[in-house]
Amino acid sequence: MKDLQSLGLRTRNGELEILDQTRLPHDEVWLEIHDAQTMIEAIVSLRVRGAPLIGVAAALAMARMLEQGASRSALAEAGAALGSARPTAVNLQAAVDRVLASADPVREAQDIFHEDVALCENMASFGAPLISSGDGVLTHCNSGGLATAGIGTALGVIRRAHEEGKAIHVYVDETRPLLQGARLTTWELGRLGIPHTLICDNMAASLMAAGEIQKVFVGADRVASNGDFANKIGTYAVAVAAYHHGIPFYTVAPRSTIDWNCANGEAIPIEERAAEELRRDWSPERTPVFNPAFDVTPVNLISGLVTDFAFIDGESLQRDGLAPHSP
Amino acid sequence: MKDLQSLGLRTRNGELEILDQTRLPHDEVWLEIHDAQTMIEAIVSLRVRGAPLIGVAAALAMARMLEQGASRSALAEAGAALGSARPTAVNLQAAVDRVLASADPVREAQDIFHEDVALCENMASFGAPLISSGDGVLTHCNSGGLATAGIGTALGVIRRAHEEGKAIHVYVDETRPLLQGARLTTWELGRLGIPHTLICDNMAASLMAAGEIQKVFVGADRVASNGDFANKIGTYAVAVAAYHHGIPFYTVAPRSTIDWNCANGEAIPIEERAAEELRRDWSPERTPVFNPAFDVTPVNLISGLVTDFAFIDGESLQRDGLAPHSP
Repeated sequence: MKDLQSLGLRTRNGELEILDQTRLPHDEVWLEIHDAQTMIEAIVSLRVRGAPLIGVAAALAMARMLEQGASRSALAEAGAALGSARPTAVNLQAAVDRVLASADPVREAQDIFHEDVALCENMASFGAPLISSGDGVLTHCNSGGLATAGIGTALGVIRRAHEEGKAIHVYVDETRPLLQGARLTTWELGRLGIPHTLICDNMAASLMAAGEIQKVFVGADRVASNGDFANKIGTYAVAVAAYHHGIPFYTVAPRSTIDWNCANGEAIPIEERAAEELRRDWSPERTPVFNPAFDVTPVNLISGLVTDFAFIDGESLQRDGLAPHSP
Repeated sequence: MKDLQSLGLRTRNGELEILDQTRLPHDEVWLEIHDAQTMIEAIVSLRVRGAPLIGVAAALAMARMLEQGASRSALAEAGAALGSARPTAVNLQAAVDRVLASADPVREAQDIFHEDVALCENMASFGAPLISSGDGVLTHCNSGGLATAGIGTALGVIRRAHEEGKAIHVYVDETRPLLQGARLTTWELGRLGIPHTLICDNMAASLMAAGEIQKVFVGADRVASNGDFANKIGTYAVAVAAYHHGIPFYTVAPRSTIDWNCANGEAIPIEERAAEELRRDWSPERTPVFNPAFDVTPVNLISGLVTDFAFIDGESLQRDGLAPHSP
């Protein structure tokens, strides 16, 4: 396998490594992945995360298995386990299926990596024109270089606008319970030199009321064919608040995140995670908890979908869904 | 001074003590308060908190000073410092002013304590009928026995409905950044045996969309005369989400929280607090932060105001403000 390098994943001399995102921003620790089991643990624990990146990572883990002499049947078994490691992001199963169906799985996995880089570039090209100099831009969770093999989805759009010289300020939702915004998006924006402010998720609405936010950009874990989409828990609350204040709300997702077979948001499986993620060490020990990892935002709250093959405005999306725009 | 006892404050043998709320729910530590400076530190650090309770606490700290022989001029000086310890809650300055103006300050401070207990009972009587058996009730921050000398404001209403035998389920916003919901409201509800579920603030909107929440009850730190009110940061986001879903949203506040001289929400001072409260140990060290402790919810999002002297429905409140209902 040739050397590959992204912000959160790399191959070197045939070894596959991921940057342990649970250790960020304080420690940059790369973990070697030798088999499917290690990768599954890394995906479930969010050491590697982001809908596009977990697809890429699963594909490369399977390629690594093959290079180490795994049989086709062992690969199929590993693929089944990898594909179900997290249920909401459609990219994961789709990438696994591509690798399993390929005559040259190692090549296929590398193609998935390189394609993802290109998808990000295309989304940035379609999305950056939506941002104006002077905009306050709100984002939720992490949809940047740590969530993809490239520059990111929503955060890639924001980065491109900044690189084009637009004077923007990014408001970063901390994104409870796992704090991907507070830990990862701030870290990425700091490295990129993009002006930003960290807020609690519950502060976004009052910043909107105060006129500080002009646009919202978020990623997605699965986009249904009618335009509904699942993303990190809290996204729906942001969409409702943006709608209430008349602020444009954009979803940014590559074709690999679109589930053409999923009719609408109700059909998207929502992963529930452990109560401890929410209770931490500060709540009473046995307090009952509800901890869904994602929520669904209906298409009627979306001002537009930025994909790698088109920008689809909200009106068209709400009327016709995604079908007329199939790449 | 006679012995007084509430959930978070007590006097015993003339000594004034507060339950250190920063140590809850794990440790129940009572701190002796000997002077104004100690009480100011406790208020600023949120060891004692809740708009009504900090008024009561400041008044009793001044009474304690007098009993220890403080002069009237020392009392005035202490009152000025206490009154400005936290700027948003109007109860604090109002209680200080009452004590300073009184011919018998020790008696006045005790009256403020007993009055607050009675105000809570009256709010519960006006508010509980708004809750039906089977309701899912959302609350934000802590507005219970820890925030008042009595059973609470919003949480007192909820408690009364439960005591009346109504089958209710309380959803508790964790309330970032200081987690009063996760730490304190869960603790109170657990002690009272009221069924509840802890959620992240960003989950409330999707629970509303799922039909799990029928009513919202929140407290207030200051109610303006037009019905706008300030409360813990995140309250506005809850109000917007409730409005979007057509869910009744009620403010519960005693007369001591109403600022008749404040025309509207824009005139309410909003305290900003230290960046570290938000960054904690998980964000990059120098990440810029916005950390307002409160936000303002405009009257047009309010379905009704529960006070100790009336229930004022939203339509009337939006049309005429509070003036026609003056007690």
